[in-house]
Amino acid sequence: MSTSAPATLTDHLAAFRSAYDELKAQGLKLDLTRGKPAADQLALSDALLTLPGEGVFTDAAGTDLRNYGGTAGLPELRALLSDALRVPVPQLLALGNASLTLMHDVIAFAMLHGVPGSERAWGREETISFLCPVPGYDRHFSITEAMGIRMIPVPMNDDGPDIPSVKAALATDPTIKGIWCVPVYSNPTGAVYSEEVARELVSLAAADDFRIMLDNAYVVHHLTDWRPEAVDWLALADEAGNPDRVFVFASTSKITYPGAGVAFFGSSPANVQWFQKWAAFQSIGPDKINQLRHVALLQDAAGLAAHMQKHADLIAPKFAAVQEVFGRRLAPFGVGEWSDPKGGYFVTLTVSPGVAKRAIQLAAEAGVAITPAGSTHPYLSDDEDATIRIAPTFPTLADLNAGLEGFCTALLLAEAERATV
Amino acid sequence: MSTSAPATLTDHLAAFRSAYDELKAQGLKLDLTRGKPAADQLALSDALLTLPGEGVFTDAAGTDLRNYGGTAGLPELRALLSDALRVPVPQLLALGNASLTLMHDVIAFAMLHGVPGSERAWGREETISFLCPVPGYDRHFSITEAMGIRMIPVPMNDDGPDIPSVKAALATDPTIKGIWCVPVYSNPTGAVYSEEVARELVSLAAADDFRIMLDNAYVVHHLTDWRPEAVDWLALADEAGNPDRVFVFASTSKITYPGAGVAFFGSSPANVQWFQKWAAFQSIGPDKINQLRHVALLQDAAGLAAHMQKHADLIAPKFAAVQEVFGRRLAPFGVGEWSDPKGGYFVTLTVSPGVAKRAIQLAAEAGVAITPAGSTHPYLSDDEDATIRIAPTFPTLADLNAGLEGFCTALLLAEAERATV
Repeated sequence: MSTSAPATLTDHLAAFRSAYDELKAQGLKLDLTRGKPAADQLALSDALLTLPGEGVFTDAAGTDLRNYGGTAGLPELRALLSDALRVPVPQLLALGNASLTLMHDVIAFAMLHGVPGSERAWGREETISFLCPVPGYDRHFSITEAMGIRMIPVPMNDDGPDIPSVKAALATDPTIKGIWCVPVYSNPTGAVYSEEVARELVSLAAADDFRIMLDNAYVVHHLTDWRPEAVDWLALADEAGNPDRVFVFASTSKITYPGAGVAFFGSSPANVQWFQKWAAFQSIGPDKINQLRHVALLQDAAGLAAHMQKHADLIAPKFAAVQEVFGRRLAPFGVGEWSDPKGGYFVTLTVSPGVAKRAIQLAAEAGVAITPAGSTHPYLSDDEDATIRIAPTFPTLADLNAGLEGFCTALLLAEAERATV
Repeated sequence: MSTSAPATLTDHLAAFRSAYDELKAQGLKLDLTRGKPAADQLALSDALLTLPGEGVFTDAAGTDLRNYGGTAGLPELRALLSDALRVPVPQLLALGNASLTLMHDVIAFAMLHGVPGSERAWGREETISFLCPVPGYDRHFSITEAMGIRMIPVPMNDDGPDIPSVKAALATDPTIKGIWCVPVYSNPTGAVYSEEVARELVSLAAADDFRIMLDNAYVVHHLTDWRPEAVDWLALADEAGNPDRVFVFASTSKITYPGAGVAFFGSSPANVQWFQKWAAFQSIGPDKINQLRHVALLQDAAGLAAHMQKHADLIAPKFAAVQEVFGRRLAPFGVGEWSDPKGGYFVTLTVSPGVAKRAIQLAAEAGVAITPAGSTHPYLSDDEDATIRIAPTFPTLADLNAGLEGFCTALLLAEAERATV
């Protein structure tokens, strides 16, 4: 952290200012905000543009997938993802094009109707609260806020949410009905939940209708050869005597096409039945032809793994660039601490308190867009003003490097300004 | 109606019973329940199986449609449907694979958040009620019931809902917030709303947040060369001083593939803004690649019309078979009255009070499945027990004819039983 070397920073204030002025003069226009795949990653799935192919429109059982029906989704695609998600096929539904939609709709169903274990619809309760590990994913928080659910931040550690903080919140607040979790390569720190933390979460003393919103968005999105332990959340919850505690969400958004992928919902038999009961009013079945396309493209679990390796080959150099530039530019001044994720889509950079907004503003004025400070926290409010999310995948490597260099220039100035005050 | 010739029916009771016993002995297994396209209709869109084609993934403006974004949907597809739906392109959104989902979600948004003009979320009101023209569409009614909205039946005429009944209900019941309408080839009677009825509906004295749920599912689904007057509901509502009264829904479910089509939402600028505000928490954009496929398949309004003509060529003979069999088998005994729709997917058959369930049960026991009596009414409850929905499109013409003959045999027996009691 910068506090370890404030003198150095102060000494360099003039040099940082002049470097920043030069940066501004370059008139850059670079964007490091978007957690989405680059065009070369999308091209890995371009076979989708002509699949499933002439005359191909039935599943293995011979069902015509062009028509209505099949509310659970294509069995072959559910089987393809079942191992990676650790959800048995009968409890895994393949649905529309976005897990965001499923997370939203599950909470909407809970608000309108309650979930198994609810005494009444959540919308009929005076107050509903969710635990939100921070830093976390802004779209989780915005769904929660839109539903009128109160958000309670809890700290995020390297192995998952801080369990003592979670327990302390639950012990004093009976309105808590859920917690957001991204268990593998968490957005935005890249943390991987340990099985021990998972066990703690499924065992918590909580309301009967307390739910873990398990957004497994990055479960197969490895950057290295290391593999996280494959935690079987549903089995752990069952063992803990809370079989209905976990809602699993996932999608192919960052496997194939973000706009034209397939999303998955998995849970206990009772929860799946509950979901299907309410979803039956909303849909006569998902786009099963698109699901067939995905089976044709990915083939099987091995095909999926090979496909994800191609993504890693394309984006691992971008994540390496973040480490290289931050290490070279920031470390000498003791500025910042940053995660070095082994998968997922983000790097979290922690700067000195009160510096994040200023650094991002300076970068923006020099034409380098960084995700707004606070977006990693409930209500877009990071009281420390210290957390910055870096999204390296979308720009080209050259643009990424230029953007990172520019951002470091802005950040160093902001840190030096603060150290000098 | 059978009441005109009960003596004849009674005279034939023994003959009808013996004909029915012969029917049962045949061991048929025929299904006339499903309002969905047959395989030969689906084949009209089989180009979708290889579209949009190699290297084709941008819209006219050059946007990469494979990635996130584009929450309003593909502009070219919205333009393609704009004329038929009479919704200006900026007010027309192209979204997921089912208008049912949009109708459900719009009501869910209203329950959770209210609509423009609402004093509070509908879910915070003591009671919310909807007017339901009967006979109508069971899935409209089931959404309404699932949301806890009270349903008030109003009679359906040949030119739309009975306006005096609608006005009488509104005059005495301030909880009424909506009405379901299928304005063109209404499900299940095939009635087409007149512009005069449309004018009445958009001009009704009603709550500020009263909405017409306009399910324009069959707007281009003509069976004959006749064309309904193209009512501009949004313009009429605007003229009436109620610009935000109408929510328009439509889809390509019965144009291309029911499972893999595109759904549309259109309304006033304020309503569209409202929808997009809440939908932004739910989605980062629809499957735009599938929308691109649809533009490639249908091309333009003329292409759409030509495509629909091919559907008509395939299903008009099936609708003609219904008229022929009912005319030959039922008319001589004065049994039943049935609609002769010029489009859409259904024929409504009205039988003597108390006979519908019995006739359908007899048919089922003889292996001919007919949509359950009551499914055309709120709460699945047709007090008259007189309305039967016939869905002729899905079976082959041979199966349809056999099913209709069998059903007439069952119905004649049921009517004769009733006349004889």
